[in-house]
Amino acid sequence: MTSIYDLPTPALLLDADLLQQNLQAMAAALPGKRLRPHVKAHKCTALASRQAAVGHARFCCATIREMEGMASAGLGDDLLLANEVLDAHRLGALRDARVTLAVDSPETIRAAADGGVREVLIDVNVGLPRCGCPPSKAGRLADLARSSGLEVRGVMGYEGHVVGVAERGQREEACEKSMQLLLEAQRDVGGDVVSAGGTGTYDCNRWASEIQAGSYALMDSAYAKLELPFVQAFWLWASVISVSEGYAVADCGLKALGMDHGNPSIDAASVWFCSDEHITFAPEQPLKVGDRVRITPAHVDPTVACHERLAVISGEEVVDTWPVDLRGW
Amino acid sequence: MTSIYDLPTPALLLDADLLQQNLQAMAAALPGKRLRPHVKAHKCTALASRQAAVGHARFCCATIREMEGMASAGLGDDLLLANEVLDAHRLGALRDARVTLAVDSPETIRAAADGGVREVLIDVNVGLPRCGCPPSKAGRLADLARSSGLEVRGVMGYEGHVVGVAERGQREEACEKSMQLLLEAQRDVGGDVVSAGGTGTYDCNRWASEIQAGSYALMDSAYAKLELPFVQAFWLWASVISVSEGYAVADCGLKALGMDHGNPSIDAASVWFCSDEHITFAPEQPLKVGDRVRITPAHVDPTVACHERLAVISGEEVVDTWPVDLRGW
Repeated sequence: MTSIYDLPTPALLLDADLLQQNLQAMAAALPGKRLRPHVKAHKCTALASRQAAVGHARFCCATIREMEGMASAGLGDDLLLANEVLDAHRLGALRDARVTLAVDSPETIRAAADGGVREVLIDVNVGLPRCGCPPSKAGRLADLARSSGLEVRGVMGYEGHVVGVAERGQREEACEKSMQLLLEAQRDVGGDVVSAGGTGTYDCNRWASEIQAGSYALMDSAYAKLELPFVQAFWLWASVISVSEGYAVADCGLKALGMDHGNPSIDAASVWFCSDEHITFAPEQPLKVGDRVRITPAHVDPTVACHERLAVISGEEVVDTWPVDLRGW
Repeated sequence: MTSIYDLPTPALLLDADLLQQNLQAMAAALPGKRLRPHVKAHKCTALASRQAAVGHARFCCATIREMEGMASAGLGDDLLLANEVLDAHRLGALRDARVTLAVDSPETIRAAADGGVREVLIDVNVGLPRCGCPPSKAGRLADLARSSGLEVRGVMGYEGHVVGVAERGQREEACEKSMQLLLEAQRDVGGDVVSAGGTGTYDCNRWASEIQAGSYALMDSAYAKLELPFVQAFWLWASVISVSEGYAVADCGLKALGMDHGNPSIDAASVWFCSDEHITFAPEQPLKVGDRVRITPAHVDPTVACHERLAVISGEEVVDTWPVDLRGW
């Protein structure tokens, strides 16, 4: 058995028991079809297969590469690419997978039909200024999709401006407003899929037929602020390489971290700043060169995407290594 | 020939002519041994070989993986790992490479000696709170290194708190202060190497024997503010996938970008925000779904590290593809 103290650093640690606890908590709250796990959060087919094992076998992806990897791994029962794409022929070429693609314009409908995709969702703007058509135009796009030979399974609308609202009452209220827009669109579109949501709204979004949560499996310091029943299950593991008066430096920098939500955190320490391959921090208790530290990323998705593998641990033993095999485009 | 309009997106574009212009401008300013290019900025041995071709054949690395990759690529004439490491046996195992390692403590000196490394630089803190010993302790560490059987080539001290100072006079003054500390340490340490500097101080640091610049080859929007004679030579290339009233969305998000210096920029457009796989921006002139946009990253180093390859272009033709082959740890 390898101890975590023998791992080269920086490394991503994934606690197998805590992961399982998160997966089961979500399966209890949203069993079977009620959850469509978003693989963009972990980009790891080995982790996705654990999600399937607790009943969440229909997945959501953000990139064509994620769709291809999931299909290759035998996890293609029902894959949704919750994003618009123009080179849809790569999706049309997927074997042994049921592929559904988001569309929000005549151009993306044409790309889907020309690329050999068979099923789509109409992507609706529910308040986040990103992809998605206005609710009032969804019906007309559905007609266009059907007349182009596509099956329209329903609607999708991500309330990304809501999932991070700290106060629960406000979050629920904003979520309801967004979902009213999505249901308005669904009345014109038809189909039985209403796909929406994320980890921040997994239990207050009562209008979607399926929730697209991903971060709940691993968690990060941004989602930890929302007091959800999911626990931090992954960390960066780094070695202290230099100690000075008042601060220490470990060998994990911003190239190993998603930095868009700001600096990561370290228990019993104050993080000063990250460089490419360093983190400078002030520990409450003195550290020595060679000590190891656990670093909690501020944003799970882009952090995992920086790494080639996850070291799966139980306590202080490394029990497995899972490739982060859905990276890139 | 492949047109850039046929590339799958997101993709990194590297303009071969502008790269060459930057490499030659640097070779004119700091010929031969005066520059030790930092490969952390591009993590690409094909690009490093172009730096060697203009006379810059001694390189600087930030990770053991970068050292291993450079040695494998035949670029190991004189490699400096400008960072402290504890698992130095990977460096000691390198064949066909001259390896020099930064050390700043008894522990890192012992790791170097035990790992089979033969040459070191004493890393000195010149004002940036990161690695490096106090100048007053450098001589004693050099003695310890020599008594451990290591060759001490000189000193290293990175004025990272200075390289981004916008006003040139202030930058020069702060640089001189830092370098006085480094020269003070060198008097006690001995050796002929005084390694320091970066793209922001490449021409005002007159005290270092060699400058560790990397960003000058590709540049980014943060360094562009310093009015250096280097031009932007790489961009992210993205496709517009959705257009709404007042804004557009392209398929390049924060997983394709280093975000620690903030949002990237787009000519003739205002960038609103980045999501994992999207950038939402307001273009001055209307765009259509399928249009392509060039995005200028705010920080070159972590942006390149997100990608598997660079599409080398001349005008609008793709003339080569270079693997980003020094990623990971």
